[in-house]
Amino acid sequence: MFDGDVHGTVAPGFEAVRDEFAAAGVGGAGAQVAVYLRGEQVVDLWAGDMTGEALTGVYSSTKSITVLVAALLVQDGLLDLDRPVAHYWPRFAAAGKDRITVRDVLTHRSGVIGVDGGFTADELADDQVIAQRLADQRPYWRPGSAYGYSGFVSFAIVGEVVRRATGWTVRHHFEERVRAPLGLDLYLGLPSALEDRYLEVLPAPQRPDWASGPGPRSITGIGYGLDSTPPLDQVAFLNTRRVRALGPVSAGGVGNARGLAGLYAAAAFGVNGQAPLLTPEVLGEFSMLHSTGRDLVVGDAGQYALGFQAKGQRYPFLGANAFGHNGSAGSEALADPHSGIAFGYTRRRFSPTWSYPEHDRLVAAAVTSALHAASVH
Amino acid sequence: MFDGDVHGTVAPGFEAVRDEFAAAGVGGAGAQVAVYLRGEQVVDLWAGDMTGEALTGVYSSTKSITVLVAALLVQDGLLDLDRPVAHYWPRFAAAGKDRITVRDVLTHRSGVIGVDGGFTADELADDQVIAQRLADQRPYWRPGSAYGYSGFVSFAIVGEVVRRATGWTVRHHFEERVRAPLGLDLYLGLPSALEDRYLEVLPAPQRPDWASGPGPRSITGIGYGLDSTPPLDQVAFLNTRRVRALGPVSAGGVGNARGLAGLYAAAAFGVNGQAPLLTPEVLGEFSMLHSTGRDLVVGDAGQYALGFQAKGQRYPFLGANAFGHNGSAGSEALADPHSGIAFGYTRRRFSPTWSYPEHDRLVAAAVTSALHAASVH
Amino acid sequence: MFDGDVHGTVAPGFEAVRDEFAAAGVGGAGAQVAVYLRGEQVVDLWAGDMTGEALTGVYSSTKSITVLVAALLVQDGLLDLDRPVAHYWPRFAAAGKDRITVRDVLTHRSGVIGVDGGFTADELADDQVIAQRLADQRPYWRPGSAYGYSGFVSFAIVGEVVRRATGWTVRHHFEERVRAPLGLDLYLGLPSALEDRYLEVLPAPQRPDWASGPGPRSITGIGYGLDSTPPLDQVAFLNTRRVRALGPVSAGGVGNARGLAGLYAAAAFGVNGQAPLLTPEVLGEFSMLHSTGRDLVVGDAGQYALGFQAKGQRYPFLGANAFGHNGSAGSEALADPHSGIAFGYTRRRFSPTWSYPEHDRLVAAAVTSALHAASVH
Repeated sequence: MFDGDVHGTVAPGFEAVRDEFAAAGVGGAGAQVAVYLRGEQVVDLWAGDMTGEALTGVYSSTKSITVLVAALLVQDGLLDLDRPVAHYWPRFAAAGKDRITVRDVLTHRSGVIGVDGGFTADELADDQVIAQRLADQRPYWRPGSAYGYSGFVSFAIVGEVVRRATGWTVRHHFEERVRAPLGLDLYLGLPSALEDRYLEVLPAPQRPDWASGPGPRSITGIGYGLDSTPPLDQVAFLNTRRVRALGPVSAGGVGNARGLAGLYAAAAFGVNGQAPLLTPEVLGEFSMLHSTGRDLVVGDAGQYALGFQAKGQRYPFLGANAFGHNGSAGSEALADPHSGIAFGYTRRRFSPTWSYPEHDRLVAAAVTSALHAASVH
Repeated sequence: MFDGDVHGTVAPGFEAVRDEFAAAGVGGAGAQVAVYLRGEQVVDLWAGDMTGEALTGVYSSTKSITVLVAALLVQDGLLDLDRPVAHYWPRFAAAGKDRITVRDVLTHRSGVIGVDGGFTADELADDQVIAQRLADQRPYWRPGSAYGYSGFVSFAIVGEVVRRATGWTVRHHFEERVRAPLGLDLYLGLPSALEDRYLEVLPAPQRPDWASGPGPRSITGIGYGLDSTPPLDQVAFLNTRRVRALGPVSAGGVGNARGLAGLYAAAAFGVNGQAPLLTPEVLGEFSMLHSTGRDLVVGDAGQYALGFQAKGQRYPFLGANAFGHNGSAGSEALADPHSGIAFGYTRRRFSPTWSYPEHDRLVAAAVTSALHAASVH
Repeated sequence: MFDGDVHGTVAPGFEAVRDEFAAAGVGGAGAQVAVYLRGEQVVDLWAGDMTGEALTGVYSSTKSITVLVAALLVQDGLLDLDRPVAHYWPRFAAAGKDRITVRDVLTHRSGVIGVDGGFTADELADDQVIAQRLADQRPYWRPGSAYGYSGFVSFAIVGEVVRRATGWTVRHHFEERVRAPLGLDLYLGLPSALEDRYLEVLPAPQRPDWASGPGPRSITGIGYGLDSTPPLDQVAFLNTRRVRALGPVSAGGVGNARGLAGLYAAAAFGVNGQAPLLTPEVLGEFSMLHSTGRDLVVGDAGQYALGFQAKGQRYPFLGANAFGHNGSAGSEALADPHSGIAFGYTRRRFSPTWSYPEHDRLVAAAVTSALHAASVH
């Protein structure tokens, strides 16, 4: 619980979000929360050792950026999700991967979640290196027959497809079309000039006991990067300047709650009086459930829309087509077209249990506030 | 438990069904049970405030009618299950639904389980209105990627396909080919002349506490109609004359246990010395498991054959290709080709838990009696 | 626990396997364990009333042979997994099975797990009889829509395909290309001259209580052969000379731990200084996950690669592409490309619980020993 040091503002009717934020346990370090209601920011809060402007590692919430860029390219007719990856990148056809589509990769159905022998920490910083190694790898399951989440590597395939289809990287598209025009505090490749705003991610008080868990070469181990050399240290990952500078598209993003909420608000509702970045048709396609049932990596806890997580499966009080992405260390970001909210949350310190129950309470408070506001208007 | 007021007859060897029926708790109101053995009625019982002739709402057991009509049309070569719905009904192709097949709809794999914004109670009475709204809707999951039960609306798509493929409604086909020739007490569109035999459905003593359950706009909420305006009152639904008169094909049927058992007996075994309505090939196709694993709406409890519920998954003592359909308020109907029984059951009062454990005991008693009869003959 | 009577040898560094073997409870009868490390035998142990040379029934570990032969034929270009079975065997197209592929059968996705009415014990001894009856049967689920293990019959389809595609039976291929050249103690069709080495399988002290379990005509009952006439007595099955002589390819094999381990060592790593029997590409294809999620017959416990069981799903400390097959009475066999081990285990007596926890400890000891040996070399 934050002892009286919650800062920032909430619009009338959203006080419940401040109350839940003040009551959240976040491991004795800082956190931020931001909420938009149909394109207008209604919550902007921070506490502990974070300011509203502070930046930290958002890990897999980074995938929000990558998927948004893919969606914009689909909208522009530059990317066809049902084409094989090998159409854009012929080398990827090796080892039985010729029919894997871009949609398969975005929905975690490709089976290409790592490489035999694992990656090195250096390799994991660089999407082009990751992509080249994945290109030679046999899938770990028959493509399309199941799905399993890959935290740190599989979206490098999306990155390579985007680069080859358009000549621009995901980072470049994001910067030009989204981040700079909107002034979002969310970076794929953090400029050195902003390094002084970066707050290091902090480890959990205790590490999770992987010894009794999945082996490093199991499907689960591969999906979580436990097979890397040395085994992936998630805390060190984004605390490494090279990672922040290169900004791998699976989990290498840096930002704050405002940036995360702003991205989803802009995508689904529009901000600054502008139209939403995505048309209803593209938004509908990307927010529709694609991968359900047991996640081969994570267990039962997955459930994906098209690249985005299906947030209505995670939070049953949301609408069926809510979408977003969370990340290690506890970041969370989503849009819920039904209630009209966009939500962003970051915290500095990993949870020892890898679960973040404050997400449920904060999102519920935001949605309840929004639906109540709608009913009185 | 019925205190000594069970009426009707059982054939020798089927006394166990009467015993189980007498012992059933049905919320202090009436119930009926009927069983056929290979086309001959062997159980005809009623109790409480129902007579054997009484009619009441059978809810989703109505789908038995709709699927039987679809099967007859397949048998006649008038309906091709693997054609897109849009082949018969072009407007349905909107919003990414062009490749959804009739089989997808019958097996709950289409993703078209409701509409954004929900239906009104008035709309839910009228299949043509439901169908038009569904035609414009984006599916809630990628068609074919998963399955999820839709209680009140999705079979309106089947109804529209039947109407467009043949010029006749499901109701008309059923009346002409099944109900009238066989004299079944089971109606899709209850004639006003029979209204005096209708006994109102009664609410459970307490309503289930949806407040702690799925949100109205979640996949589960949509599948159960919780997103309607006002939220669907299932008790009121069939107690509304307009619903009974129009007879929506998903859940708008009225009948009694004799009618339900008679339909399944006629379909699978033949009654009155006639051949079964369905050929072995069509029966085999429609009773074969199609959708298994987790039901996106219901949770783990689904499991469908082709339109019918896969009753061998529900009752493991039945044969692998037993098929049927149950309905709200506790109706149940099925055929088990292995033991030769057809079974029908109705009750007036909803259970507060939405579970009906007397089903298990009644069906088991019927099957055990039938298998024992076969072994002594 | 074996009281001091463990015999045989272990290579330095593999003493932990002997310790686990000595501690294993195997129902007061004999057992054998053999381990290869990259083609060299490092463990050869036996205890109780078995010698190292003794042969006993390995049940579904037999499928290791059948799948290996199929893989060799794929490697030779003589078998195309994605062709319909009916391409090789036209009669199989009956009853809706025209599009079932060889891959579907190997991955338990065909739905053809038994026949209406069940088999007789005599029929279950003879693959050609099984195959002919399966050819006329409608699948129990829509082919490809799910998977469910068939213990005793479905691989007869593979046998029929092999015979028709090549003119030789699985047994003949195995004998000529694998068993005789390598001198493996593993037989599909036990020669009468070796009958004196056969030790009868022993029943569990108590039989499992199927009465409270699945019905004989349920999907589960059919998959386990409970619908046979009389219900399949698994103990009697391989204790019948006719079964051992005919060697049905689903579960009719006889061998010892050396033979099982030797097969997997030869397939994945090569023995006697020879190349592996399977190329990396074919090995990769056959060890890749194909069928995951709920097994319609077994419940949650399945998970298949291509014909082989996906052992990395069974033992999370193995690599993601470990593969093998276990069998009733407690045989287990596998290869783990990551650690380099091949493992074989047999025991005479069924467990009353149908579970064999010594597998976990023995395989873990073998893998830990192998990885430790690799790290010190």
